[in-house]
This record gives sequence, structure tokens and C-alpha cells, in this order.
Amino acid sequence: MKGLKNRGYLRTDVNERRRAAEEFTGAELENISKYCFSSEKASKNIENMIGAVQIPLGYAGPVRIAGDFAQGEFLIPLATTEGALVASIARGMSVINEGGGATASVLSDTMTRAPVFRVDGLDHAKRTIGWIEDNFALVEAAAASTTSHGKLQGIEPFISGRGLYLRFSYTTGDAMGMNMVTIATEAACELIEEHTGAQLVSVSGNMCTDKKPAAVNFIKGRGKTVVAEARIPGAVVEARLHTTSAQIAETNYRKNLVGSVLAGTMGANAHAANMVAALYIATGQDPAQVVGGSMAVTSCEDIDGDLYISVRMPTVEVGTVGGGTSLPCQSEALNMIGCAGDGKSKKLSEIVAATVLAGELSTLAAQAARHLGKSHNALGR
Amino acid sequence: MKGLKNRGYLRTDVNERRRAAEEFTGAELENISKYCFSSEKASKNIENMIGAVQIPLGYAGPVRIAGDFAQGEFLIPLATTEGALVASIARGMSVINEGGGATASVLSDTMTRAPVFRVDGLDHAKRTIGWIEDNFALVEAAAASTTSHGKLQGIEPFISGRGLYLRFSYTTGDAMGMNMVTIATEAACELIEEHTGAQLVSVSGNMCTDKKPAAVNFIKGRGKTVVAEARIPGAVVEARLHTTSAQIAETNYRKNLVGSVLAGTMGANAHAANMVAALYIATGQDPAQVVGGSMAVTSCEDIDGDLYISVRMPTVEVGTVGGGTSLPCQSEALNMIGCAGDGKSKKLSEIVAATVLAGELSTLAAQAARHLGKSHNALGR
Amino acid sequence: MKGLKNRGYLRTDVNERRRAAEEFTGAELENISKYCFSSEKASKNIENMIGAVQIPLGYAGPVRIAGDFAQGEFLIPLATTEGALVASIARGMSVINEGGGATASVLSDTMTRAPVFRVDGLDHAKRTIGWIEDNFALVEAAAASTTSHGKLQGIEPFISGRGLYLRFSYTTGDAMGMNMVTIATEAACELIEEHTGAQLVSVSGNMCTDKKPAAVNFIKGRGKTVVAEARIPGAVVEARLHTTSAQIAETNYRKNLVGSVLAGTMGANAHAANMVAALYIATGQDPAQVVGGSMAVTSCEDIDGDLYISVRMPTVEVGTVGGGTSLPCQSEALNMIGCAGDGKSKKLSEIVAATVLAGELSTLAAQAARHLGKSHNALGR
Amino acid sequence: MKGLKNRGYLRTDVNERRRAAEEFTGAELENISKYCFSSEKASKNIENMIGAVQIPLGYAGPVRIAGDFAQGEFLIPLATTEGALVASIARGMSVINEGGGATASVLSDTMTRAPVFRVDGLDHAKRTIGWIEDNFALVEAAAASTTSHGKLQGIEPFISGRGLYLRFSYTTGDAMGMNMVTIATEAACELIEEHTGAQLVSVSGNMCTDKKPAAVNFIKGRGKTVVAEARIPGAVVEARLHTTSAQIAETNYRKNLVGSVLAGTMGANAHAANMVAALYIATGQDPAQVVGGSMAVTSCEDIDGDLYISVRMPTVEVGTVGGGTSLPCQSEALNMIGCAGDGKSKKLSEIVAATVLAGELSTLAAQAARHLGKSHNALGR
Repeated sequence: MKGLKNRGYLRTDVNERRRAAEEFTGAELENISKYCFSSEKASKNIENMIGAVQIPLGYAGPVRIAGDFAQGEFLIPLATTEGALVASIARGMSVINEGGGATASVLSDTMTRAPVFRVDGLDHAKRTIGWIEDNFALVEAAAASTTSHGKLQGIEPFISGRGLYLRFSYTTGDAMGMNMVTIATEAACELIEEHTGAQLVSVSGNMCTDKKPAAVNFIKGRGKTVVAEARIPGAVVEARLHTTSAQIAETNYRKNLVGSVLAGTMGANAHAANMVAALYIATGQDPAQVVGGSMAVTSCEDIDGDLYISVRMPTVEVGTVGGGTSLPCQSEALNMIGCAGDGKSKKLSEIVAATVLAGELSTLAAQAARHLGKSHNALGR
Repeated sequence: MKGLKNRGYLRTDVNERRRAAEEFTGAELENISKYCFSSEKASKNIENMIGAVQIPLGYAGPVRIAGDFAQGEFLIPLATTEGALVASIARGMSVINEGGGATASVLSDTMTRAPVFRVDGLDHAKRTIGWIEDNFALVEAAAASTTSHGKLQGIEPFISGRGLYLRFSYTTGDAMGMNMVTIATEAACELIEEHTGAQLVSVSGNMCTDKKPAAVNFIKGRGKTVVAEARIPGAVVEARLHTTSAQIAETNYRKNLVGSVLAGTMGANAHAANMVAALYIATGQDPAQVVGGSMAVTSCEDIDGDLYISVRMPTVEVGTVGGGTSLPCQSEALNMIGCAGDGKSKKLSEIVAATVLAGELSTLAAQAARHLGKSHNALGR
Repeated sequence: MKGLKNRGYLRTDVNERRRAAEEFTGAELENISKYCFSSEKASKNIENMIGAVQIPLGYAGPVRIAGDFAQGEFLIPLATTEGALVASIARGMSVINEGGGATASVLSDTMTRAPVFRVDGLDHAKRTIGWIEDNFALVEAAAASTTSHGKLQGIEPFISGRGLYLRFSYTTGDAMGMNMVTIATEAACELIEEHTGAQLVSVSGNMCTDKKPAAVNFIKGRGKTVVAEARIPGAVVEARLHTTSAQIAETNYRKNLVGSVLAGTMGANAHAANMVAALYIATGQDPAQVVGGSMAVTSCEDIDGDLYISVRMPTVEVGTVGGGTSLPCQSEALNMIGCAGDGKSKKLSEIVAATVLAGELSTLAAQAARHLGKSHNALGR
Repeated sequence: MKGLKNRGYLRTDVNERRRAAEEFTGAELENISKYCFSSEKASKNIENMIGAVQIPLGYAGPVRIAGDFAQGEFLIPLATTEGALVASIARGMSVINEGGGATASVLSDTMTRAPVFRVDGLDHAKRTIGWIEDNFALVEAAAASTTSHGKLQGIEPFISGRGLYLRFSYTTGDAMGMNMVTIATEAACELIEEHTGAQLVSVSGNMCTDKKPAAVNFIKGRGKTVVAEARIPGAVVEARLHTTSAQIAETNYRKNLVGSVLAGTMGANAHAANMVAALYIATGQDPAQVVGGSMAVTSCEDIDGDLYISVRMPTVEVGTVGGGTSLPCQSEALNMIGCAGDGKSKKLSEIVAATVLAGELSTLAAQAARHLGKSHNALGR
């Protein structure tokens, strides 16, 4: 099975591996072979490449956004295989536009990595923390020596038994930044080990927290914390969504709030992960970070017949450089929303929130309309 | 912007929309245009299609699995843009093979949907529950009238205020089954509304819970609950992973267990979501369900120098029919692991768990080796 | 310090120990010496007794309850040192009475204990579970051999790595039942060890879960799962609580629902733990189980100007025999509500829920009145 | 039922009420009548007082503590009705002493209150936050005008929909401080309302979080965050606890860590709430705050045969002035540990942690000894 050992990145290497895979598995991989990009360009994105998988790409919008960074009308690229998702988001956007568009804002921006050290005990932990406080400039310099984009903002210590967890927070420019902060933190950890005798057990001690649903991220934020909102006139709700603001507000109340509380959910939303996944995959984000994106809190209120809707997303971990963003299709998708390259990651995060807003609106309205339409009872009737 | 209104599925329709999108956004979408499959085949997967996004596909393995359903050696297709991920999983698989392979088992299999009804209060809620208990056969028949694959297993009620949440559990054959159980549940809800006067507010009251990190799924399971494990001889750990079983066990203890507890995480693992995302995207699963897959619990123990490692995954929501599984690339990826079509979803879930196992092993070992290698101190030394 | 070694239960023993404690600490313990009950009667409740601490006892009510078990008007004994608490609960009860009283119901009743076994791995775990399923009658008999009150209802297995967690569920008559089920479970575990080779690590593997805030209890219930509700006419809300149903509903929405979601709380209430603690201490319950009682979900809705309010309490762990219930003061407090002795624990749990309901109502109304009174804006205005 | 309307605090008032209660309920309340303190002294602690409930008081210790504030040997007062609890804690303390005593440290100290405001939307929320940042000195002065002990440290904002949650953090001297910070926050809120137009919905928006199990407290701490630890020689473990350090470490691993993860618990301990409840009730703390105390994380490690054990308690909400601390019995109990009055609350919190440490040690050892004694298998054997 010679091809399986091939480690090259030329198309001939890819072909050889794919043929070996076909031989090994007995599967024909013809469609997988039909990738459009230079496999050498993917050398930092994958190993053992045998081709590509193609995900259908559609768009929703244009949606009007008045954000701190995203301003204007955006046609949103969405990669998905779940029928009706794109149509539903598109409907939400159209309704949001009729209400004047969505507002959005980035409330915080930080990427974290939290190594865990083994210490002798409480005294050693306290001395280690003390040394870091006294020598923060040194630690900062060690981290800075590895990166020109990442900047250490602070270190938060947590002591538990013989484990000392140090949550490093960085700004990372427009990269999502996980690799950057891992390398910077490793450099800082070496310095800390040398001077304190604390022994690094793992550069990630899970207090970061990356790609797991974690309260520490939900409370403190990771990546961007973003909020988006819209106000839809009552007449638009009725004409376009075939329900009322009161019914949507009740659906949000019973489903997203009480239902999520009863289920023990982090966050309170209908399906934020759907919008996040479709937009992340389209634009070359890390799809495992859909986990963080899934912890949104959706609010709906009936204001004199109008519908107020908002989403709070504490953990939008996105970048516009690095990762999968420079692959050809993904780069084109970023270009669709003017988000390729430097200076665009906050803009992208606002677009994520506005897209989630539209998807939440449409789904809540659909559930409210189909079922509550039969009913003459509004909330509390 | 005429193309934006086009709703057709012919390639010419796709082209027209894409050109309109290019015009609207000013972005060239040349690579996005290069999809290999018939757009008409994607008509159930997406709307407003303008092309496809290509995700590099590699493989890890072959890995030897002795599961209840997955038996043999498997070459695992992985779609990702995160460099080093595939190589790391491949390394883990190779080491697992040297230990004799992974064992896996499906502990439960159920898909849930939990509508919320508005009731007048406690008495009404109790009467509604009573009616359902007395007429379960009728409810079952209503659900069954919509599907030949889904079978209602039970309904669990939760009362909170004027909300009555009914968690329906189904078997769904080899489909992931969300749509199936939604339609079946809607039919059942109509019957319940008629006979009890309880009013359906939403067919999903979030006690299901779909695509949000939720305790109810973590405790009760959703989709497949799967366990995988392996035992690696100490000599293999040292030769191949450049660390020791004791060091890996300590890393798992301080990072995955204590660190996850401190972070308030659901589950306790290093990066299960990475493996889940790469395999889900390759095989046409719903990538938003990476959320459920992220709640794995990883255990590592040093047994007389050997390493015992296992993962417990309570929420593996996968299918081998429906959704994105029949798209050409995705179908080929399923064929690579013998998982296309009926009778294969449990097998697929075991492969998911074994793949997560390999990724966890490799990452934990890497963190243990890089840092603990310098140290002569093992756990508790 | 001779008295410190004294292990006797006579008053002279208590006195000797107390004098030794005074000598050791230099503190005068005169008030602590003034207990009214026979120290010998407390021999199953405490060791090293040196006296008693006195907690002021007041009452709230009478409150009218129409429960499945608690029926009539009850004067509720409350032990607390937090000023205003009793008055607030009393106000809530008075208002509830004007609305016709509270309704209450016990939805489930079960006490759990979850030993953890060490197994060789997945196969061993599955074989052990299989043996238990095949021999459930034997396991039941082993448990039954230790108790005439406890009855094993079921065993739920959870596998994670080499740990096998078996969650035993029992009915325990009118005892809270922790000791009873611990002893019964130990007997069952011995049998399981013998026949399966699984090795008991701890009779409590924390999946029980006792005295910790745990999702497994919140989802599945432990002790009694109880619901209580009331409806207050709008005129009563305004005359007695100086606010409106809409304002109370908004307070509950922003504080108990959204605020609790943002805080990552298990449950959603204002201060259920206050009522639970005061009633538990008064009636000889285990005050550490206030933890379970704190996980209530409070709902408020404005129904045509009336206020609907309810609490759902999944984990009310109470008994009317055993524990501190037979101490003289505590027994008298139980007598105040007709809850001393056999056949009364469900009644007590409904009284707990009704008392929590009254406290929630009063506090929410106070917060709504003080602040929203100034405002002309109701929810969504 | 005339006595029920009596609101006085003289003993004759108490007697009249109690007699009325006896008449209403038909219960004799003779023991409840036997309180030793002046009912007038309890006028700030309770309403509708009819007597007192007596909780048996014992002691554990003396235990040697080397804390930042608690230094020396302490005899710990414990009020409980749970047999074996005091003896178990006493055993733990004795063993800790043989290892040289416990170390303890207060890592942070802050009391929080988090009002929720209604705002028009995102812009209004941001303007309100901006005003507070620009006028922090004014807000601080408003809070300070109400208290000489509380000092505002900071305000952390959380926006979700039209709700703006402001988490105020204070130091509160040696009072637990809830009332103090509530009053101070109300004054600050009035100022904020005036200048920003944000409307206060509730002075507590549940992001505080008081008396509910909440991630925000677990992550950020509330009251004191305290750590305690001890190291026990292997020979002592074997002679006194009849087990080994390895077996205790395994018990902690499978039960407190993995078991708690599987149960979805906040924290990871055996029964911290027991020790917290007994010490809180003895010393006049708020027993509803046992909830916060229950979220401890216990660690055990086998260090060359010795046992290292620690507890981390993020939410120890205690005071040595105010609340129930000045009642006669409670004050005496505080005197036993030199913790009455000003300057003692941090000392008390370290004693809480050391007491929890002892209780955890004893219970883990008991479970390890009873069951693992039969086994020749240690962790990972």
C-alpha cells in the first residue's frame, strides 16, 4: 500500500495516495479527486491529502447591518447540506431589512490559552503567581518574542491542589489566533518554569477553553463577544411571518428561555450553531469552534406590537487571516462580505451575529406561526 | 440584481445567481463555481446555490477497530483546514494499532424532539400527561403515520409553570433523523392538542436538545451514546510517543479532568470536537451537531506501565442515509469506511468514537512529551 | 484536656466536654449550655456534644394549600437569623390566600445512591451490566435484606473508562433515606462484586448526587420533584403588592430567566434556598440538602392582569422520620404542620414548595414595586 | 387568632404568638418556648418569633491551621443532626494534625450585587456603560454615601437584549455584606437611572449570584475564595485510616472527579456542604449560602506514598459581624475559634476551608478503606 506512506503535496502525490486509498478501501473516489485548488497551497491545512469534499454554497441576504465594523448591505455565503436552512436565513434577513436592518457591536476581543503547571502546593503556587506579577514585563516580552501580531493582555491564575492554571489573554490581530497564542504561551511558560520551579504539565490546561462548551468562556468571553439586534414593525411581522410579535415573544420565552433552563443548556437559543457552522465552513473558519458559537442567548420582546430581537454571542472565535481563510473558495467567500485579510475580523464577527439573528428570527417565527396561528391565545391569555 | 431572485436548480440557474452575486459584491467567485456534482442533486440540501466550497480531504489510519458494528481496519476520511490535525490523528491510530486496536460499543440509540405546550396550569398539565399515558398507542400511531423508519419509544414529561415539555424518543433507522422525528412529533402533537386542549407553542421546546450544549443530552444521551477504548503497551508509548503512560495519565488528570471542572465544561476532553468536525464534514453529517460531539469524557490510566485510554461520547448524532450523505464526495467518503446506506449508522458512530480516541491520545501524548519530558517528576512525584 | 476525650452522652458528659472546650478556647459557652432536650436523645444526631445552638423560630401563614397530600391551612415554622425573611414569606402567603391558595403536586419520589466500580474495561463493564439485568431479582433481594422501608426501583448504568457507575433508585417510605439506601446499596454491591469481579471503589461515585449542585438531579430529580402554583387577581396584586402582574412578570423574566441564564445557574429563581433553609432547619431536615432545594425554577405570567406564579423543584430531599426529625423542637415544628411521622413526607414536600412559592412571590413583587413603580414602562413598553 | 397579629418582640409577645400558634395548629410547642436569649435581641433576625429551635452542637478538633489569617489550634463548633458527621470531621482533623496541620489561604474577597436595567437596546446599553465609566467616581460616591464599611471595587457590565446587567463588586469589611451592598447598589442605581435613562428592573438581576449554584460565582468567586491543603505521611494514612494514599487518590479520582463530571456537577467534592452547613449554623452565618459553599473542588494525590489533599472553595460567603453572629449561642461559637467581631472574617473563611478539608479526607478514606481494602488493586493496577 505504497501510496499511503507518500507524504508529498504535489497533485501526483495526492493522486497516488488517493489511488492507494481506493485500493485499500475498495471505494471509488472520483468526485473527491476533483478539487480546483493547488494541493501545494493546502500544505499548511492538511496532511495525507487525497482530494477535497465539496459542500454546496448558497447565499442569504443582502442584509443591512449597522455595526461598529460591518456597515452596509451584505450577501452572506453559507455552506450547508441542510435543506431549508439558507432559505430560512434569507427570509429572516429580508424581514430584518424591512425593519431597517440589524445593529451589531463587538463588546470584547481576546484569545486565551491556559497552561497548567504542577506545583508543590499552595505556597509554591502563591510564590509562582507573585513572581509573575512582579515580572510581568519579562513574561510579556517572552511571549512577544514569538509573534508580531499577538499581544499579551493579562494572566489570570487559578489554584486547585497541586495544579496552577494560568489563563493568558491576548489580542491577536485578525487571526483567530490559537496557534499564535499557543506558541507565545509556550515561550512564556519556559521562562516561568525557569524562575519559579513550577513544572509545565500541558500548555493547555482546559481553562482556555478551546472547542468545549465551557462556563469560563460563556462568562468571560473568548474570541469576540458580539451582540446584534433588530426591531421589526408589527405589520411586517404579520405580513411576512404570518404571526405576531406577541407569539414570537412567547415562543422565545417558553422554548429558548424556560426550555433551555430545564435542559441545563449553556446559552438560550433556537439553532445558532446552524448559522455559525454554515458561515464558518464557507469562510475557512475552524468548524470545531462552532461549539463556542452555539452558546448564544436570544431575546425577543413585544414592544407595542413591534418585535425586538437580539442575540448575545460571548464566544465568536473567528479570523480573516490564517487557518483556512486563504484557500481559494474560502477566500472568495470572505471577499463576498469584504472580510478577506487584515483589519476585518471584528467586521466578520458582527456579520456572524447578524446572520445568527436572522436565522433565529425566521425559525422562531416559523414555529410560532405554524402552531400558534391556530390559537387565539397569546402569551398569558 | 435579477439573478438573486432566481430559484432554479439547473447549472445555468446557479451560474446566473453566482454572476449576480459577483456583481452585487464585487468579488470574483471563480473557484466557487468549480463544483463537480449535479446542482439538481443538491436541491434538498441548499437554496440559492451559487457553487460549492472545497474542503481539503485527507485520511488517517488504517485503524483497527473491534466494535459491535465496526469490525476491521478502516481508513478514515477527514476534511479539515487545520494543519497537523490529520497527522496527529494518524499517529494516534498507528499507536492504537500497535496495542492491538480499539474496542468500541454503542450503549444507546435514540433521537429526541421535545415540543412545548401551553397549559392552564398544573391540573391541566397532569390531565394532559394522564391522557397521553392512557392513549399512548394512539399517539404512537399518529407519529407512525408519518414515517416508516421512525419508531416512537417513549415520551417523558416535564412541567414548569404553564409550560408542558414532552420529550419524545424515537429510533430512526439509519438516518440521523431530526426531520423525521420533527414531522412525526408534529402529527402526535396535533392529536394531543385535540384531545387535551393543551396548545402547542413550538414543536421544539429546547428540551430535545438539538445543537446546543445541554445537560439533558449529556445525562440521557441523544443520537448514539458510544464508548471506545484502547490499551497501549508501555514500550510502545515510550518508543512512539516519547513519553510514559504515567505522564499521559497526569496530563489527562490535570488538564481534562481538573481543568475541565474548573472551567465549568460539559464533558472532559482535549479536542474531541476537532475529530468530530473533520469526520462529520467529510461524510455529510450535520456540522452543527459537532456541539453534541464535543461533550466527550476522556480517561487515561497507567496500568502497570501500559496506557489505558477511553472516550465516552453521549451525543453522537449521525446518519448514513439522508442529509448530506448522498452528495457525491460525501458518499464516497462514507464508502471509504463501508458506511454508506442502510444498516450502517451504528457502525459509523463507533468509527467516530475510535477516531476521537486516536486524536485524544495523540494530543495528550504530545503535550505530555513536550513538557513533561524535561521533568523527572511523574504524577505525584 | 481530659473532657475532650469523653465520649459519653449524659448531661454530665456534655458538661465536662463543654468545660474542657471553654478551657481550651478561653470562650465562655454559657448559652450553648442551655439546651432543653435530653442529650441522650441526640446520641444518633451528633458526637462530642457540648450543648446546642438556638435559632430563632417564627412562623408564616397560615397559607391555604390544595395539594395531593397537603390540604388545608398551614402555619409554617421557619428558623432563620435573616431579618425580613419571615415577614416577606408571610406577606406572600397572605396574598396567595387572597387568590384562593396554592396548588401543589408531587411529580416523582425517589432516593438515589450511585456506587462506582472499577472494571477492566468496556467488555467487563458490559458483562457486569448484563449480569445485573439478568439477576435483578437477586440484587433487589440483597438490598431488601437490609431494610424494610427502602425498595429498589431500578439501576441505571453509566460507563466511563474503567469506571462503572450504577445509579440505584429507591423509594424510602417517609425517611429522607440516604442512610437506608447507602446500606442497601452496599449489600447489593457485595453481591455484584462477587458475581462479576467488578471492584467497588466507593459506595458513592457522585452520580447520586448528594449535596452538590448536579445536572443529573436537576434533570432526573432526587427525593421529591414537586410543583406548586397560585393565581393572584390583578386587583390583589395592586392593592397588596403595590405593583402589577406585568411588572412582576417582567422582573421574573429579566432576573430569574435571562439573568440566571447569563450567570450559568442551575435553576432559575430569586431565593428558593432561603425558604428551604428556614423550613429545613425548623423541621430537622438535613441543611446541607438546601443545595438540592436551591435549584428551583420560578415562572410568572400576566394572564389578563392576573398573576400566575409557579415553582418547579426537582430535588426536595425531605423526611418526616429519622434524621433530626425526632428531636424535641424539630418534632414540635413538624407537628405544627401535621407532618410528624409516617405517611407525611410527600405532604411536607408540598409544603416546602408552597413556602418557596410565597417567598418568591413576595421578593419578586418587592423588587418590582420599589423600582418599576417609578416607571411607566411595563414589559416591552 | 389574636396572637397571630401581634408584632411585638417582648417575651410576652412571643408567648402570646406561640400560644396562638398552638391553638391554631393543635401542636404543643413546649420545647420551642425554651430559648435562652432575649427575644428583643433577635428583633433584627426574625419576625413572628414564637421561640427557637435547638440544634445539637459538638466540636471537632483541635485542628492545627497555618493560614494567612487563621494560625494555631482551633476547636471547631459544629451544629448538626446528622450522626457520625462530627466524629468523621474530628477524625480527619486528628490525622491532619499528625501530618503537621493544614495550610490555608484567602485568594480573593469580594461581595457582589448585580442589578438589571431595562434599556432601549444596544446603543442605549453602550451609552449607559460609557456614562458609568466616565463617572465612576460619582457612582462610587453614591454607593459610599450609604455605608462606611462597603467599598465599591468595580462594575462589570453584561448586555443581553434590552437587559443591562451590572455586576457591582465590593469589599465589605467583616460583614458577609449582602444587605450593605444591596443598599449601596440601590443608591448607585438611582444615580445611573437619572443620568442615563436606563430603568432599574430589579436591584438583583441574578448575575450576583446569591444562593443559587451559578457558574459566574464558581469562575469569578463570591465572598472569599479560599484554598486549604494538607500532607499526610503514608504511615499515618495506613495506621489511622486503614487504607493507602493510592487508594484515597483513586477514590477521589473516580468519585469526585470523573463521577462529578458525569453528573454535571459544579465543583467536585464528596460532601463539602455538610461541613459548611454545620459550621455556618453554629456561627450564625446564612445557611442558604451553603449553596455557594457546596461548590468545592477536592484534590488528592499520592506523593511517594504520602497523601496530598486540598480543597478549593470559590464561594465562601461569611461574616463575623452582622446577621446571626451576635446572637448569644452563635457569638459563643465564634468565640471558640477567636472569630467574633471585626477583623475576623478572612480568618473564619480559612477555618471553613480547613474544616471542609478534614471532612473530605475522612469520608474519602472511609469509602476507600471499606471497599478497596478488599482489593489488591490500586489505581491503575
